Amino acid sequence: MFTLPEAQHLIENHIQTISIPEAPSELYEPVRYVLSMGGKRIRPALVILACDLFSGAVESALMPAVAIEVFHNFTLLHDDIMDRSELRRGKPAVHVKFGENVAILSGDVMSIMASRLMNQSPGVILNVVQDVFTKTAMQVCEGQQMDMNFESVLTVSEEEYLTMIELKTAVLIAASLKIGALLGGSSQKDAEDLYEFGKYLGMAFQLQDDLLDTFGDPDITGKKQGTDIVDNKKTYLMIEALGCASAAQRKELLKWLTAREFNREEKIRSVTLIFDTLKIRERTEKKIRAYYDRALTNLHKLNRPGERKTELINFASYLMNRNR
Amino acid sequence: MFTLPEAQHLIENHIQTISIPEAPSELYEPVRYVLSMGGKRIRPALVILACDLFSGAVESALMPAVAIEVFHNFTLLHDDIMDRSELRRGKPAVHVKFGENVAILSGDVMSIMASRLMNQSPGVILNVVQDVFTKTAMQVCEGQQMDMNFESVLTVSEEEYLTMIELKTAVLIAASLKIGALLGGSSQKDAEDLYEFGKYLGMAFQLQDDLLDTFGDPDITGKKQGTDIVDNKKTYLMIEALGCASAAQRKELLKWLTAREFNREEKIRSVTLIFDTLKIRERTEKKIRAYYDRALTNLHKLNRPGERKTELINFASYLMNRNR
Repeated sequence: MFTLPEAQHLIENHIQTISIPEAPSELYEPVRYVLSMGGKRIRPALVILACDLFSGAVESALMPAVAIEVFHNFTLLHDDIMDRSELRRGKPAVHVKFGENVAILSGDVMSIMASRLMNQSPGVILNVVQDVFTKTAMQVCEGQQMDMNFESVLTVSEEEYLTMIELKTAVLIAASLKIGALLGGSSQKDAEDLYEFGKYLGMAFQLQDDLLDTFGDPDITGKKQGTDIVDNKKTYLMIEALGCASAAQRKELLKWLTAREFNREEKIRSVTLIFDTLKIRERTEKKIRAYYDRALTNLHKLNRPGERKTELINFASYLMNRNR
Repeated sequence: MFTLPEAQHLIENHIQTISIPEAPSELYEPVRYVLSMGGKRIRPALVILACDLFSGAVESALMPAVAIEVFHNFTLLHDDIMDRSELRRGKPAVHVKFGENVAILSGDVMSIMASRLMNQSPGVILNVVQDVFTKTAMQVCEGQQMDMNFESVLTVSEEEYLTMIELKTAVLIAASLKIGALLGGSSQKDAEDLYEFGKYLGMAFQLQDDLLDTFGDPDITGKKQGTDIVDNKKTYLMIEALGCASAAQRKELLKWLTAREFNREEKIRSVTLIFDTLKIRERTEKKIRAYYDRALTNLHKLNRPGERKTELINFASYLMNRNR
């Protein structure tokens, strides 16, 4: 049985072996650049762990696992163009380093490469795997579109926000587990239970991200504190705060959300103070815990011996207790 | 047996039936817009004609055929962003009408939709079909990258140019025929012969495009004459001209290729005059004829009764004699 670090290591090695054409170098150099940047390789590792739950033979899951990682990196590449993000994993984003046209086209070819790698799934299961993969891939685009839509509105409902993060973040984690399970020969029911486990874990993961942006220790997260507040991001924290604020607090929050000129530190301090008064941190932690519990409920339903689930329980607990 | 217009009609009707999600509307409205713009539906019609060569049951080829058309329209959508083209089929391009971010993301989702539609190929042949499709899709990106590279250099070799149009244009026409044949139950050899037929026809098609831009009748083509010359496009005509020009003619061509300020009509007239002196039109027509002959040679090799090939021969002859 694989541990998470072992699965991550397996993926990291395998990514180096996939064939990427040499020419035209302008197209494929950015692909190499993106794939060599590292990252935690969580999603492909989950494909391996899920496959391993049902079958010792994880070789058949290697290419599909890498496909998920290539797809994930493609979405980051194009998201960085759309969001005008200049840095990715501490390095210049592709559109900054290679230009926007190359970034669009390199992303396009990565998306196709992902589909081509997924096509290396065993024939008997190929259709089902591609069905899950392409459906999920479309949903990720839908989530990104919703996220972009949120930029041009002042407020977002909790329901809209939860749908957005489900699509943008949670379903790919869920699909990684489901595809791994199917490749390992699981029943449809078990694959579905793992999907739900992954989906709720993904929701918890994203809310944790929101929390860390405002309340994390910048020395540990490696990111500036409060950027979501400065950028007027409609995070779970902000949505909750607006939902339970007094008239005066709501007015102040809206003032900061619409302020064109402001002192960065003052804005962070003032908004965080309202969050503190409204116990937004505790509310968010409670929501995270609820998702975590729902995730585990689905994992427990899974028809496998308890000791084989240990690694996924460890993984969930690692995600829950992360401080970066 | 289907005629080309019947196949085009079948596709046009079928495209209207594919399911495109409603929400988020910002993402999927551009997809509907692009697919409702029409176009000749040549590539999907070729899937149908090729399938029909081997099997009367073309239903199994309908979704894969639409997949090819959706993919083709995705490439046009993203190419228009990269090339800053403002019009497509006489209407505003997606990035002009809906904004650049939406154009990137709608293109992304169309590429995934194409893969999802292709996944509706029959299970026994799915892996082979997806292999041809994804390989071809990568090549189309490579062709677009080469085309973009050509913009920043003064001259391009004939070989480089022919490789570019093979990748950007010819292989998708070739793959449409090959996929159709495979779906119809053809042998690998027959599918390969049809691929070669389509590839050489695609090369002839693109050279014809180059020719029409300079020598076509704008009243018939519906396009301005000489835009390739104005835009310093490295077309087959220009490459041939540079290759066989005298020192003085070459100097004049390079003068026009590097001129920053010029009179549009004078530039077109002067370059066309050199083309005329060097018999570039006749040389290009000879090259087109050579590709056409190679295409037909491959079609004749195909192990099917002559009368069943009639429609593809008609199609080739229609492409050759088109004046728009």
